Amino acid sequence: MNFTISDEHAELQQRTRTFIAEHVIPMEGDERCTAHGPTDGLRDELVAKARKAGLLSSHVSAEFGGLGLSHIGKAIVFEESGYSPLGPVAMNIFAPDEGNMHMMEEICTPAQKERWLRPLAAGLTRSCFCMTEPPPGSGSDPTMLQTIAVRDGTDFVINGVKWLITGANGASFAIIMAKLEDGRATMFLSDMNAPGIKVERTMNALDSCFVGGHGVVSFTNLRVPEENILGELGEGFKYAQVRLSPARLTHCMRWLGAARRAHDTALRYAAQRQAFGKTLGQHEGVGFMLADNEMDLHVTRLAILHCAWVLDQGHLGTRESSAAKVISSEAIWRVIDRSAQILGGQGMTHETIVARIFADARSFRVYDGPNETHRWSLAKHAIKSIRH
Amino acid sequence: MNFTISDEHAELQQRTRTFIAEHVIPMEGDERCTAHGPTDGLRDELVAKARKAGLLSSHVSAEFGGLGLSHIGKAIVFEESGYSPLGPVAMNIFAPDEGNMHMMEEICTPAQKERWLRPLAAGLTRSCFCMTEPPPGSGSDPTMLQTIAVRDGTDFVINGVKWLITGANGASFAIIMAKLEDGRATMFLSDMNAPGIKVERTMNALDSCFVGGHGVVSFTNLRVPEENILGELGEGFKYAQVRLSPARLTHCMRWLGAARRAHDTALRYAAQRQAFGKTLGQHEGVGFMLADNEMDLHVTRLAILHCAWVLDQGHLGTRESSAAKVISSEAIWRVIDRSAQILGGQGMTHETIVARIFADARSFRVYDGPNETHRWSLAKHAIKSIRH
Amino acid sequence: MNFTISDEHAELQQRTRTFIAEHVIPMEGDERCTAHGPTDGLRDELVAKARKAGLLSSHVSAEFGGLGLSHIGKAIVFEESGYSPLGPVAMNIFAPDEGNMHMMEEICTPAQKERWLRPLAAGLTRSCFCMTEPPPGSGSDPTMLQTIAVRDGTDFVINGVKWLITGANGASFAIIMAKLEDGRATMFLSDMNAPGIKVERTMNALDSCFVGGHGVVSFTNLRVPEENILGELGEGFKYAQVRLSPARLTHCMRWLGAARRAHDTALRYAAQRQAFGKTLGQHEGVGFMLADNEMDLHVTRLAILHCAWVLDQGHLGTRESSAAKVISSEAIWRVIDRSAQILGGQGMTHETIVARIFADARSFRVYDGPNETHRWSLAKHAIKSIRH
Amino acid sequence: MNFTISDEHAELQQRTRTFIAEHVIPMEGDERCTAHGPTDGLRDELVAKARKAGLLSSHVSAEFGGLGLSHIGKAIVFEESGYSPLGPVAMNIFAPDEGNMHMMEEICTPAQKERWLRPLAAGLTRSCFCMTEPPPGSGSDPTMLQTIAVRDGTDFVINGVKWLITGANGASFAIIMAKLEDGRATMFLSDMNAPGIKVERTMNALDSCFVGGHGVVSFTNLRVPEENILGELGEGFKYAQVRLSPARLTHCMRWLGAARRAHDTALRYAAQRQAFGKTLGQHEGVGFMLADNEMDLHVTRLAILHCAWVLDQGHLGTRESSAAKVISSEAIWRVIDRSAQILGGQGMTHETIVARIFADARSFRVYDGPNETHRWSLAKHAIKSIRH
Repeated sequence: MNFTISDEHAELQQRTRTFIAEHVIPMEGDERCTAHGPTDGLRDELVAKARKAGLLSSHVSAEFGGLGLSHIGKAIVFEESGYSPLGPVAMNIFAPDEGNMHMMEEICTPAQKERWLRPLAAGLTRSCFCMTEPPPGSGSDPTMLQTIAVRDGTDFVINGVKWLITGANGASFAIIMAKLEDGRATMFLSDMNAPGIKVERTMNALDSCFVGGHGVVSFTNLRVPEENILGELGEGFKYAQVRLSPARLTHCMRWLGAARRAHDTALRYAAQRQAFGKTLGQHEGVGFMLADNEMDLHVTRLAILHCAWVLDQGHLGTRESSAAKVISSEAIWRVIDRSAQILGGQGMTHETIVARIFADARSFRVYDGPNETHRWSLAKHAIKSIRH
Repeated sequence: MNFTISDEHAELQQRTRTFIAEHVIPMEGDERCTAHGPTDGLRDELVAKARKAGLLSSHVSAEFGGLGLSHIGKAIVFEESGYSPLGPVAMNIFAPDEGNMHMMEEICTPAQKERWLRPLAAGLTRSCFCMTEPPPGSGSDPTMLQTIAVRDGTDFVINGVKWLITGANGASFAIIMAKLEDGRATMFLSDMNAPGIKVERTMNALDSCFVGGHGVVSFTNLRVPEENILGELGEGFKYAQVRLSPARLTHCMRWLGAARRAHDTALRYAAQRQAFGKTLGQHEGVGFMLADNEMDLHVTRLAILHCAWVLDQGHLGTRESSAAKVISSEAIWRVIDRSAQILGGQGMTHETIVARIFADARSFRVYDGPNETHRWSLAKHAIKSIRH
Repeated sequence: MNFTISDEHAELQQRTRTFIAEHVIPMEGDERCTAHGPTDGLRDELVAKARKAGLLSSHVSAEFGGLGLSHIGKAIVFEESGYSPLGPVAMNIFAPDEGNMHMMEEICTPAQKERWLRPLAAGLTRSCFCMTEPPPGSGSDPTMLQTIAVRDGTDFVINGVKWLITGANGASFAIIMAKLEDGRATMFLSDMNAPGIKVERTMNALDSCFVGGHGVVSFTNLRVPEENILGELGEGFKYAQVRLSPARLTHCMRWLGAARRAHDTALRYAAQRQAFGKTLGQHEGVGFMLADNEMDLHVTRLAILHCAWVLDQGHLGTRESSAAKVISSEAIWRVIDRSAQILGGQGMTHETIVARIFADARSFRVYDGPNETHRWSLAKHAIKSIRH
Repeated sequence: MNFTISDEHAELQQRTRTFIAEHVIPMEGDERCTAHGPTDGLRDELVAKARKAGLLSSHVSAEFGGLGLSHIGKAIVFEESGYSPLGPVAMNIFAPDEGNMHMMEEICTPAQKERWLRPLAAGLTRSCFCMTEPPPGSGSDPTMLQTIAVRDGTDFVINGVKWLITGANGASFAIIMAKLEDGRATMFLSDMNAPGIKVERTMNALDSCFVGGHGVVSFTNLRVPEENILGELGEGFKYAQVRLSPARLTHCMRWLGAARRAHDTALRYAAQRQAFGKTLGQHEGVGFMLADNEMDLHVTRLAILHCAWVLDQGHLGTRESSAAKVISSEAIWRVIDRSAQILGGQGMTHETIVARIFADARSFRVYDGPNETHRWSLAKHAIKSIRH
């Protein structure tokens, strides 16, 4: 049992922290931060800075230009990155690209990697992950998939509609989950400019931290040749798990940084702002909120690190990542909510970054599987384990 | 003890409900709903509809064109009005105008009423209430007032800066809280186009339901003649209480309607959307959230009605309105948050009204005195009462 | 809408308050308060005091010696009674007798009333309600009933085991829920000294407020003649509902008094005890707990009164009493838990009454249907209502 | 970063688990488990078993017969021990002896160690820690100390009253916190049979897991020779910190085991008990509680292990142990409360161990500093850190 951060990770932590402070936070007021996320133009500028700082796509292997970070390494670096809503964008480790790269490195053929992964990891392109569908399609229950892929010679012809597709607008390519005629789920790769793909619209959302926002994407007789199948035919759900467990955890890491930022902002305010004869922080009512923030941040970090370590041991970590996701998303939300409350009226406005983090973070309890689904899964595991 | 709604109130409840459903909800998608609230153009259209329906400024006395509703009456009508974010705007019972009218009817001279209250109550003008100041000025502690009014003959010369001034942008007149040279607080009335008043900027905020948004307002040698003093010199804080206790409660009423809307939206979705072999609502995890929503709405309504009744008996209702504010704002927040969660990914977007209500409602735990201040006040009352 | 307490109820409230303060609270330290509840000897003494004060069995009709209180009347009187754990015992309105009397007055034949209800209402006997069974029998799901009643001529022969039977030890008679051969549930009346009934043991429990504690009761070929059927054959569940809805609500009333007592005890301590340079109550951390107590008590009282009013209108009040039960049991628990916390180390001991109330009150979230069952029921109602 | 348990600790964990299962749990129903804790007779039997199993006083150094466990080692072993309320008693690692041994080994003179520590560590004697006083004395604010020690030649004469003194009844010696005439706090050692010490009474408490219960102890002209000063004169508070930080953490460890036991009991029941057509555990409402239990246990374990590691690095760990104490005591309480709820009516009785754990564990949020005090301390640290 050892909680020491390695020298290498400590150096990277410090370097990331400095990078975020000096190069990213100053850009937060840039007017290219729109309601649908930072524009691609702003993103390119930020990516260039991270590239120069040697902090681009740090989770990808050296072969594709990254630092090949372990999960523990990611826990440390991604938290720092999340300290600004623009940090993960700059460092090319934001959703869905970060998870897509991870999965693609595990599953793609060499040719697929050269065509799609290399430029993605280099920060030259963006991608999207087309899984979620509008009712009555596939939401938290993936088996309700409606999008269909019908074989036609060596091609597959895909039809269907997806929504909540983060980053669709402006993406170079998509990973598409569809079911075959026999009902088995399969993932396909396709350039976004292929005939038959259309971003119907970008949805208005609470959050504004994802480049490209969240789109509705339709497939109308989209042809995908069989060399663009991602992995094996019919193994779509298995690969989704490959993607989801670590992707869920990297979400935790980034949001932890965001929550720490909110807390630091509130803490600084509470240390100075006077009310009723003393500083806010000297009021126990506020002090207790600050203490709860510190404990929630602490517990979240421990749960993330532990799960990262489990994944680093080569385990699938389904239970641990479910638990880490629920623990993190709820603790982080409490931290951000308290921080906004401490800031008072100002916390309800964009005078500080906290309101933006607040609007961004709400979805964390829903994305990557609603917490209800994870609780159910944890319960099933627990009951099964007691029976043995 | 009797929980029956009078026939008159029941009729008004039904009429308001129909008005909101038929005339207001259809306007929610209007593009004049901006990040800084509905435009004055949209507001004018909505007000015209409410005027036609006989539902304008229902809290004001008949003399000024209203229905002279009791607090119980308001509880019933305002909840219905709040069912749409545009409802209170349409019915001219939104903040800060609703509270301003209430206070002005109590305190203004006949001449002041003719000049400012009559057109306000008729929905022809808007007003703002200039009390809150940026640090280190007056926030939750009103005694930290920085804005100063210096007598100069029969005029007062006012200097200072206010922020979080709801509706400032576009308002016809302002009520300004300032301190005299002897430190006593006083309220003044002033047209907004008077020399020396400037809306410096409109703040970007989480909410988007207030016409005119939230402004930063500066006073630079603003001259106010003594006939524009609101009430007595030096009685500013006393009048603020006259305004705040009922204004706090009407906030509860409107937000209760909003929360009910969120709940109904989630309930309807849960009754239909399938996942894992049954409807969402048939999942206990979701069902329990719906049950908790129902109980939170129930308890909020009871606390509001009880406090309204206390005010209708002629009591100040300080404790009751503090309690009602804390109970309501927290229960309502839980309802809205759960409703968003039940809607899943969609709840994080503006596909339904819930995300908008979510962003609007966060400030309710802060406005009208942060809940921490009310808890402190309730504790002091409790301790004082046990000592006697 | 009117929250005024009638003069008659106000007088009764005051009289009960005085009775509890002067005659009941002084007996709380009596050594006949055992781990299995007050002894029957102590109970007799207390009942005699209440009888003298004209406060016995106030919920029963005048015909049987009570005051014929409405549900609203009970809400007011029972809360006062619950201010001491011995109050409901003294006033003959404790569980299960209070609920049994209510049901018996509604359902029994005149002969049954004379034989069993009259002495019960007079405080001369006690009763028990034999419904709950050990696994795999009937717990929160009443349809899992295992106890069986087989007709034999004009008798029924009952076999089965019940547990958690409050007051069994020392009761004069029992109401027994059993299923007929055709599976329909039926209630029977039987003297406890009938051959075939045995109190196997008294269970050790957290609470110590119920006379007779909680017993395990076995029926071995118990013969019950058909004139002792309670109501109609096969209508057992229907009658259970007749009993449960009001019985659930009277639990809320009594526990509300207990929670108020805990709060008052903590409040008095917080007003005096010094720590870190001021009284406990002047610490915001403690003050906020006191404020939350006040709000929880307030909300509980409102929910109870509202439900009582619904029942007084002649409605079944299923939803309202489910909601009132969940709201009350959880709010009351929070109040008691906070009160214990405020008292510090002392609160963990029986130096004050709070620890006793704490141990007594835990079961309120379970008895009369676990809160989970009520939430599920509320959810079903909500979903059904939105579908129409 | 490494979460692996060492082989040595894993072996000890397994051995302790087996010992508790085979030798301790079977004794839980022993009638010598009284309302004031296990009797000394039962304790002696249990201690003999642990001695035989080589599991006695494992936190003490080998010199005094223990295993010299690190804090991490204790985290692992003590959790297993706490799986039964009798486990820590058997293994001689219960409060207050465990903390007393730890402090004595750090501070006592060699002669004091031989006289008092050696037999204590061998399980032959018991001790008590006399710090807390009844109002208006020293409670959560230690500076309010009333007990006074006046020098008289080479002796000190002590007068005062202490309460909530765990284990006083039956203890061989006491550690007494008193203030000198100059106000500085000092600790003294004294045999309990010294003239002037009297256990006035044993307090009735919610918990029943501490041998000797909780006593009121008076000192009337108690003479203590200067060789019985514990450490340096005037350093009493410093030593209290030496004792408290680790003692607080070992409490967390033991209660974690208790909470796991409650959870396992509920889990086993939920996996089997039928209601409404399926097992309890298949009901999401119950499943979610089980999932929350698992997460609370997980987070508690991580916070304990982290803090143990910090202490093992030689740090004082004030913040970490405050955080661990608050996190643990609240998470553990939720686990136990939910477990009782899942067990339904049965959970309110002593049919399972859960009700006993429930009554025992309530005080954990108060003992070792109420959580409010720790929150306040954490807030001060946070504010101080942001200022630098």
